[in-house]
Amino acid sequence: MAFIDYLHRAILILMQKAGILGGGQLGRMLLQQAANYPVETYVLENDPQCPSAHLCHHFVQGNIQDFDDVLRFGKTLDVITIEIETVNIDALEELEKGGVKIIPRPAVVRMIKNKIRQKAFYKEHHIPSPEFLVVNNRQELQDHLSFLPAVQKLGEGGYDGRGVQVLQHAGELDKGFEAPSVLEKMVDIKKEIAVIIGINEQGETAVFPPVEMVFDPELNLLDYQICPANLSASLLQKIESVASGLVKQFESPGLFAVELFVDQRDEVWVNETAPRVHNSGHHTIEANQTSQFDLLWRILLGYPLGKTGLVSCSAMVNLIGQPGYSGAARYSGLPEVMAMEGAYVHVYGKKQTKPGRKMGHVTFLGESPELVSGKAQAAKKMLQVIA
Amino acid sequence: MAFIDYLHRAILILMQKAGILGGGQLGRMLLQQAANYPVETYVLENDPQCPSAHLCHHFVQGNIQDFDDVLRFGKTLDVITIEIETVNIDALEELEKGGVKIIPRPAVVRMIKNKIRQKAFYKEHHIPSPEFLVVNNRQELQDHLSFLPAVQKLGEGGYDGRGVQVLQHAGELDKGFEAPSVLEKMVDIKKEIAVIIGINEQGETAVFPPVEMVFDPELNLLDYQICPANLSASLLQKIESVASGLVKQFESPGLFAVELFVDQRDEVWVNETAPRVHNSGHHTIEANQTSQFDLLWRILLGYPLGKTGLVSCSAMVNLIGQPGYSGAARYSGLPEVMAMEGAYVHVYGKKQTKPGRKMGHVTFLGESPELVSGKAQAAKKMLQVIA
Repeated sequence: MAFIDYLHRAILILMQKAGILGGGQLGRMLLQQAANYPVETYVLENDPQCPSAHLCHHFVQGNIQDFDDVLRFGKTLDVITIEIETVNIDALEELEKGGVKIIPRPAVVRMIKNKIRQKAFYKEHHIPSPEFLVVNNRQELQDHLSFLPAVQKLGEGGYDGRGVQVLQHAGELDKGFEAPSVLEKMVDIKKEIAVIIGINEQGETAVFPPVEMVFDPELNLLDYQICPANLSASLLQKIESVASGLVKQFESPGLFAVELFVDQRDEVWVNETAPRVHNSGHHTIEANQTSQFDLLWRILLGYPLGKTGLVSCSAMVNLIGQPGYSGAARYSGLPEVMAMEGAYVHVYGKKQTKPGRKMGHVTFLGESPELVSGKAQAAKKMLQVIA
Repeated sequence: MAFIDYLHRAILILMQKAGILGGGQLGRMLLQQAANYPVETYVLENDPQCPSAHLCHHFVQGNIQDFDDVLRFGKTLDVITIEIETVNIDALEELEKGGVKIIPRPAVVRMIKNKIRQKAFYKEHHIPSPEFLVVNNRQELQDHLSFLPAVQKLGEGGYDGRGVQVLQHAGELDKGFEAPSVLEKMVDIKKEIAVIIGINEQGETAVFPPVEMVFDPELNLLDYQICPANLSASLLQKIESVASGLVKQFESPGLFAVELFVDQRDEVWVNETAPRVHNSGHHTIEANQTSQFDLLWRILLGYPLGKTGLVSCSAMVNLIGQPGYSGAARYSGLPEVMAMEGAYVHVYGKKQTKPGRKMGHVTFLGESPELVSGKAQAAKKMLQVIA
């Protein structure tokens, strides 16, 4: 019994020093939650105006991709986590050797941040994931025409939809990336699902109920996400089992977001994993007993895992910089959305907007999927980020 | 309809500049919530190690009781609020004249912070509140022996239980305060209740369900608080109506905590009011649709009021510095409490503990008053702040 272990350890909790690499909205929401615990917070980030800069005890200006910056930042800390994968792994490994707790472990971040290594890991560990090939340049695509239609993903450097493209047929090969990448068989997708899982140093896991991504049929853009996902109990169970089976094989504590496809034959495929708090878990702040941010702090600070059960049905919409507007951000329609019952607004405090930039999100709680979906769609029309 | 007004105003929300006088735990929890909105935060406080210092955009070291410090702090801000009453009211009035929005209005803080003026206000406005006399020194108590047993409260300077004492009989008069104070008839208390109410600039109110204070029968100390209060529907309604009738007479936007007694004959008496977020509203972070902190931001920033309904039954315990320990704070039993289902821990990050200091709180959510009360009492024994 974990509980008995804790009793026997007779722990005296002191203020721990925790660092976050990256200062975006994920760091910001982590820091909002950190203020509930005895922890002194440090953030490393180039931009002193970033969403996290004013919410930590110590903001350190520096490059999360630079070996020396990361090493200097981390060496006096008790524990370090990341809010983005593009960090200097060599420095994290050096810090880990020196006794700093790095969660997730640098080895798993190194594997995940490179999509070629990530796919190889899935294959090696018999994780169901779409069939793939590795191509090193545009020329090599020509050798695999029979593999199309496929999705090409840059090995490194893709983020937030960048570095991913669909190649339907030979005529589209000139769009191909001129860099090492994964060419993945197109799945006949019925649903896109995300599962967030926390795993602690003892290997105990806490799994959040799966979330369903709902796409705008005309624009093929993520419209909103909804939880619980509209799937049969057996399919939900299969998804949770695939996702948690994967996370256990990472051999690392941390919080992981596993994105999956359900195809037309109800087969489940792992698309990709993020080794950190994730956009698909924002609703957990209000809709679950423990949020993804709280769960990660519990893991970082060595506290017991929390319960992940649903408090309410929810839908979440991202608040995206409106096309055609760049400059100082203004929020049109904010009071109207805040007047809606069950609306929880999160604006990330980014000073500048630009088309497509994630500027905030709104979670709706309510009694039924229909109710919250309707509100999410309405809010998307009402609330705009302009300049 | 407020909603239609908002639509017609076609508001473009810009980043507002908001200041808080005081940097304790109430400011801290306000700032955790502020990070959801487009607001630039300023805190004025003497202690650069205070719980709020690292969670605002701009920490300004200064004395909230000093005219010049408050004036300098406030003059470039859009809106100012307080997290403690002992602030320089003259400076706030000067700022108000200059067009800075002060919420609550300085006039109401001036009245409330002096218990003699506060009682006079209740009398003048026919608010049911225990009968009282004003005494200016210990000698004057001798003239009112027939008024005993009574409670003597210092006119100014009392806080968190200090500046209040019970005078049972003539033999106790040497304990009397040697300063202007209120002598209040003892009420035969059945229940102690708190009601938190938000009121916006349009005079619309949002009332939180009343909270009941549960006292340790042996120590006569607040043991925990529970919501909803265990009272008949008609009594609850009477309490809400007394409290919201009072708040409307303040003629000020803001968030107010009204503390009341129910006596043995089910009469309702206003004990006192705080013109700010309050200890008795901490549970609203998890247990209500909108928290007291969120509601105050909505009022400060001119957003619509939120719904205050209960999400769950709750009990809240304060985490108090253990007698006999002073120095760097350590938290014994924290993981054990965090392992309890439905426990939400809030540690305020105060570096130093001392006996009786408020160091944090824990809110328990659960299905029944019995369940959450039991957990609150258990947590109180398990979790200790020592040095």
